[in-house]
Amino acid sequence: MYNAKAYSAANATSPLASTTIARREPTDHDVQIEILFCGICHSDLHTVRDEWHDAFPTQFPCVPGHEIVGRVTKVGSAVTKFKPGDLGAVGCLVDSDRTCPDCQAGLEQFCAGMTLTYNSPDKYLGGVTYGGYSDSVVVDEHFVLRVPANLSLAGAAPLLCAGITTYSPMRHWGVTKGKKVGVVGLGGLGHMGVKFADALGAHVVAFTTTPAKRDDALRLGADEVVVSRNADEMRKHAGSFDFILDAVSAEHDINAYIHLLRHDGNITLVGAPEKPLPVSAFGLLFGRRSLSGSLIGGIAETQEMLDFCGAHNITADVEVIPMQKVNEAYERLLRSDVKYRFSIDMASLKSE
Amino acid sequence: MYNAKAYSAANATSPLASTTIARREPTDHDVQIEILFCGICHSDLHTVRDEWHDAFPTQFPCVPGHEIVGRVTKVGSAVTKFKPGDLGAVGCLVDSDRTCPDCQAGLEQFCAGMTLTYNSPDKYLGGVTYGGYSDSVVVDEHFVLRVPANLSLAGAAPLLCAGITTYSPMRHWGVTKGKKVGVVGLGGLGHMGVKFADALGAHVVAFTTTPAKRDDALRLGADEVVVSRNADEMRKHAGSFDFILDAVSAEHDINAYIHLLRHDGNITLVGAPEKPLPVSAFGLLFGRRSLSGSLIGGIAETQEMLDFCGAHNITADVEVIPMQKVNEAYERLLRSDVKYRFSIDMASLKSE
Repeated sequence: MYNAKAYSAANATSPLASTTIARREPTDHDVQIEILFCGICHSDLHTVRDEWHDAFPTQFPCVPGHEIVGRVTKVGSAVTKFKPGDLGAVGCLVDSDRTCPDCQAGLEQFCAGMTLTYNSPDKYLGGVTYGGYSDSVVVDEHFVLRVPANLSLAGAAPLLCAGITTYSPMRHWGVTKGKKVGVVGLGGLGHMGVKFADALGAHVVAFTTTPAKRDDALRLGADEVVVSRNADEMRKHAGSFDFILDAVSAEHDINAYIHLLRHDGNITLVGAPEKPLPVSAFGLLFGRRSLSGSLIGGIAETQEMLDFCGAHNITADVEVIPMQKVNEAYERLLRSDVKYRFSIDMASLKSE
Repeated sequence: MYNAKAYSAANATSPLASTTIARREPTDHDVQIEILFCGICHSDLHTVRDEWHDAFPTQFPCVPGHEIVGRVTKVGSAVTKFKPGDLGAVGCLVDSDRTCPDCQAGLEQFCAGMTLTYNSPDKYLGGVTYGGYSDSVVVDEHFVLRVPANLSLAGAAPLLCAGITTYSPMRHWGVTKGKKVGVVGLGGLGHMGVKFADALGAHVVAFTTTPAKRDDALRLGADEVVVSRNADEMRKHAGSFDFILDAVSAEHDINAYIHLLRHDGNITLVGAPEKPLPVSAFGLLFGRRSLSGSLIGGIAETQEMLDFCGAHNITADVEVIPMQKVNEAYERLLRSDVKYRFSIDMASLKSE
C-alpha cells in the first residue's frame, strides 16, 4: 500500500476536504495512474450527500470521481495494454466478475459482480473503493482505457461518464446518417449528446426551455433548436424523430416528446427525475414507440467511444477548476451554472 | 351497391339494433365475403359509445366489428388471391395508400392514409366504413387474409385483432425458444399472448390478480402462474424476463413489472389504461430496459400469424353468441365475464 492525496467527505453534510488515502501497490494485472484531470459528475454530488441512500447508501469517508484521465506511472508484470508514460483513463467501473455472460459480451455494466469506481466494496483493501478526486489510482488493466493523443485531457475526462452515457444509447438505438435525433436538455450530458449525434451524421434537434441557449446549441452541432415551451414549435416536429435522448433530471412532460417520435422511434432517459414520469399509453401504442433508460456502457464500447472522439476531435466543454474549488463547484452545479462540465486539474493537489 | 344486413348503433347511448346498410359491388380488385363469424373487441364497445371522442370521434350510425371470417362469394376480375368458396378474413384495416414507405415495408398499420374497417372515411361510398357486425363485406384483396382450413372459424375470428395485436410485438421483440416471457392479464388479449408465447417456444409466466385463474392459465400454455398481488412471488422473478406483454387496461403498477425485466428486456403495452402510468426512471435506467406499446400489425404479418396459428392449431377461446345477444355481451365484457372472447355467429342474422 502507498498513500495518495485525495479529497473526501466525512459524512453526508460535510464539505469535501483534503485527506490521505491508501491505494494498493499494483498487482500483476494492475495499472497505476497519476491522475491529471477528473470530471465532476452529478452522481458525485448525490453520493457525497448520500441522496441515493435507500438504493445505494454511501459509506464514509467518501472519495468520489469517475471521470479520470492521467498518466501511467507503473504497470504490473502481466500488463500488456499499457506501459509507464502512456495516457490512461478510468470511468465508472474498476472491476467485474469477468466470467458471466454479460462480461463475456462486453457488457460489464450489467454484471452483478461489478465494482464501481467509488463507494463499492473494495476487494483488495476492504472498505469501499475511492474515486478520482485524488492524485493517484490503481486499476486492473481491463478497466483502463486508452486516450487518443489529440484530445485535450481536461475535456477528455468527462467522456468517461457523460460521454459513454450519451454515446452508448445512440449506438444501441441505431443513430446514423439520415436519422433525425433530438436531444432534450443542454447540460453536461445533453451537450455531449448533441456532439455525438452530429458526429454520427444525424440531423440533430436540440430542445431547450431556455431560448438563450439557441446559439450555443447550434455551435455544439445542432441543426435546429426547439424551445420546448413553444407548443407550435413542438407540433411542427410531431411524429418525425427516430431517436430522442432525454438528459433532463428535472420534472418534465415526457409525453410531449413521445409524440415527436415516428413509428418504432425510441426515447431514452439518461437523466433520472426523482418522481415517476406520467406516461400516456396511447403515445406508445400508436407507432410502436418505446421509452428506455440507459446508464454508461461496457468497457469495449467505452474504448470505441474514446476512439470515436479521437477521430472526430470531440471532448466535453469544460471549466477547469482546482481541487480546492470543488465545494463551490457543487453549489454551482445545483444551479446549472456550468458550461458544461467541471474538470478538476489535479496539479492543484500538489500544493496540499 | 347492394343491401347487407347489419347491427348498428344510432348514437352513443343507444343499443345496437338490426338495420340494413349499403355495400359496394366488388370492383376489379375487390373480394366479397359472406361473414360467418365476427369477434367482439373492446374497441367495438369504445367506438359504439363514442368513448374515444376526443381522438377518434364516432360517426353514427356505427357498425363495428374488425375480427371477421367468412366465405368468399364473389371476386373482381383482377383478383388473384381468392376465388368464390375460399375462406377469407378481414382485420382492422381495409385500405391504405399502398405507396408510402410504410406500406411498401408491409407496415400498413402506420400508413397515414390507412382506412380502418369501421368508422373511417369510406372512399367508395362516402360516409364511414361499416364493420363486421353484418352478413357481408367487400374489401380490396390486399386486405383480405387467407384462413388455414384446420382452424375453427368461430375461434379464428378474434385472431384478426386480438391475435395479431399479441403476436406482432412478440415477433418484433424477439420472443423465441429460450426466452422467458411474461403475460400480464388473462383476458381476450392476454390469453392469446400466453398461447403465442408458448407456441413460440418461450418459458411463459402468466401474471394474474385472480388466483382462481391459475389452472386456466396453465391450460392455455403458461409454465408458471404468478399472483401479482403476492410481493414474494413477484420478487422471485426480479430481473429475469426478456419480454413481458402487458394486456391490462385497468390501472396497475407498471414499475413492478419493469423490475422483473432483465437488461435489455422490453415490456409492451397492448392494453390502454386511460390515465397516464407513473413510470420510475430508475427501473428503465438500470438495465437499459424499455417500455413500448403496440397495436395490431401489417397485412403480411397478419397472414404470417394466421399461418402460424394453422401450423400450431391456435385459435381464441370463444363463447359463440347470436347477433341478437350483442348488447348483453357488451355488458358482460365490461365485467370481464367472458372466457375469453365473444364470437358472433352471423347465421343468426338470417332470421332478421
